[in-house]
Amino acid sequence: MKSKIMKRQNVRTLSLIVCTFTYLLVGAALFDALESRYEVERRADLLEDEMMFRNKYNMTPTDFEILRKNVERTVPYYSGIQWKFSGSFYFALTVVTVIGYGHSTPQTVGGKIFCMFYAVAGIPLCIIMFQSVGERLNVFITYTLKKIRKCLKLRNRTVPETHVILVTMNLSTLVLTSGALMFDHYEHWGFLDSLYYCFITLTTIGFGDYVALQKDDALQEKLHYVVFSLIFILFGLTVISAAMNLLVLRFLTMNTEDERRDELEAAAAAQNAIHLDGDVITSNGNVHVVSNAQERAAVEYSEVISVCSCSCYKWSSNRGKEVQNNRRRNQSIFTTTSGKNNYGRDDSSEEGDSFLQYHSKRNSL
Amino acid sequence: MKSKIMKRQNVRTLSLIVCTFTYLLVGAALFDALESRYEVERRADLLEDEMMFRNKYNMTPTDFEILRKNVERTVPYYSGIQWKFSGSFYFALTVVTVIGYGHSTPQTVGGKIFCMFYAVAGIPLCIIMFQSVGERLNVFITYTLKKIRKCLKLRNRTVPETHVILVTMNLSTLVLTSGALMFDHYEHWGFLDSLYYCFITLTTIGFGDYVALQKDDALQEKLHYVVFSLIFILFGLTVISAAMNLLVLRFLTMNTEDERRDELEAAAAAQNAIHLDGDVITSNGNVHVVSNAQERAAVEYSEVISVCSCSCYKWSSNRGKEVQNNRRRNQSIFTTTSGKNNYGRDDSSEEGDSFLQYHSKRNSL
Repeated sequence: MKSKIMKRQNVRTLSLIVCTFTYLLVGAALFDALESRYEVERRADLLEDEMMFRNKYNMTPTDFEILRKNVERTVPYYSGIQWKFSGSFYFALTVVTVIGYGHSTPQTVGGKIFCMFYAVAGIPLCIIMFQSVGERLNVFITYTLKKIRKCLKLRNRTVPETHVILVTMNLSTLVLTSGALMFDHYEHWGFLDSLYYCFITLTTIGFGDYVALQKDDALQEKLHYVVFSLIFILFGLTVISAAMNLLVLRFLTMNTEDERRDELEAAAAAQNAIHLDGDVITSNGNVHVVSNAQERAAVEYSEVISVCSCSCYKWSSNRGKEVQNNRRRNQSIFTTTSGKNNYGRDDSSEEGDSFLQYHSKRNSL
Repeated sequence: MKSKIMKRQNVRTLSLIVCTFTYLLVGAALFDALESRYEVERRADLLEDEMMFRNKYNMTPTDFEILRKNVERTVPYYSGIQWKFSGSFYFALTVVTVIGYGHSTPQTVGGKIFCMFYAVAGIPLCIIMFQSVGERLNVFITYTLKKIRKCLKLRNRTVPETHVILVTMNLSTLVLTSGALMFDHYEHWGFLDSLYYCFITLTTIGFGDYVALQKDDALQEKLHYVVFSLIFILFGLTVISAAMNLLVLRFLTMNTEDERRDELEAAAAAQNAIHLDGDVITSNGNVHVVSNAQERAAVEYSEVISVCSCSCYKWSSNRGKEVQNNRRRNQSIFTTTSGKNNYGRDDSSEEGDSFLQYHSKRNSL
């Protein structure tokens, strides 16, 4: 059993690696096709202009190389003062959010070392904060959707997760487009480039080819624009985190979940020779308001119980099968050799059914 | 109860927000203190050199501005051909891993639009892949540590999680330092700057102030160096993901876990009027090889059971309390009004103890 589950996890991981590499190769081919020709043309034009200048001013190659290096170094300084408080705050934000535009980077040894230590603690803190706020946002959206269903007098008040995902997706699109419009207004990049900037920022890629607050000493002069930009980044990342919380987080724990089930089964298998003795517990088992969580708890509970019920000991790594097995397992708890079998069996089968209901409910959620 | 748990989650989220903002403010102040003075001096020197040039060649401000823009644009082209297959692969990797150096960025409209769509699917795939491989790495480390303990003939074969974390941490440091040494050798940046580059890359900040493979047309000429750089990024990110998987992932699901427990309690509370009838089940409850997962399952199982045991119905949102409560809850299952109380009580208390053992075990893990 263990080896089987191990195998499943390894196969999953391997297929993920294969997918990622295929995706990278396809991406590389397409980027090559899209950009290579333009690069060659652009390169030729720029070097031609350069030669014109050098000839016009009769500049020696050495001098031009020195000038080139000088111009490269002055780029951040031409964009305004970068390290006064507001600029440093902007930089610190790009570090902990891992956006890392690189529009301005620490130049001193002390700055570089501090930046590393700052990131070590800051990045996990930031990830946890954004995920936490994102999850709260999802809860708020679910609550609002419930209220709307109430107003619309819908019979089924439970909000499908797909609806929450749809709302989060629309919210993300709204943030991106409104952000694009605002940055287009302030930076005059044009809509597509502003949208591209917003996207590259909120995915935390942060190329730095377009960076807000780098014109007309905006970091010092345009406080309202600084505040807007920071709010855009913070709110935008929250909305993206909310979407990630719904869409990605569950996949991150897949292997660990399997390990957990694996441990559970191994532990129970080790307990495979315990005797059930005594009489019947009869309880009214109709737990119909039960939740996803409770269904899972019930599955685990039935697994723990089945440690004490070697009579119908059946393991299944398949979740669906597990749920179906609860029926048999629960029977093994509620029925004994004494005369109350029917009562016990009815009871257990009722519980078995309800588990199946929860499972279907859970999938519909 | 629900409101209480809601409150706990909101308080947690709020305190995380406060922490992050405090961290950002402190960081901003320190970056300002570390970099501001150097920035002023550096800026003055560079502009002075610039003036010297302009005077030496008697260059008009307009001409110099055009030259400056030209030089800025030629930076990626001076670093070699960027968009042939190997360069495009390197770029695609910086997109899906959100490193985003920005050493070279799409210049065509098609390239920018494709880049956005490429990232939408690529980033989640990459996160899931690295987390999955990281988790496999942790499992492998645990397995190796177990084997070592076996070789050392240690009585306690269970590997504490702290040991796995320590190994992952050391592995991360090893990757960073060996990477730094290699890049120092290839790029001649000096050790500190190479370490800074490796750190900024593997945290996916990716400023782009230092970028590998940008010298001497390395992307086309030095294939072995290209392969080494890509392997460094991929293996490095796997090791960092393994550490994140152990240290951060659990915090990302805190609120969701509370919501789960909340649902569980609400569901159970709704079932608060069920009668327990019948006799005693007596089972040998020494489940000593039980795991963290099983302890949790057992806690949830006891919660499900306590739906049927309103006699000692006690809810506790505190995990520790919950575990202690199992003792009472389980007694309510195993003891009845019939003459078998002692047997039942002994049995249940034994089980209660074992739960407490698991809890302490779990904390030690």
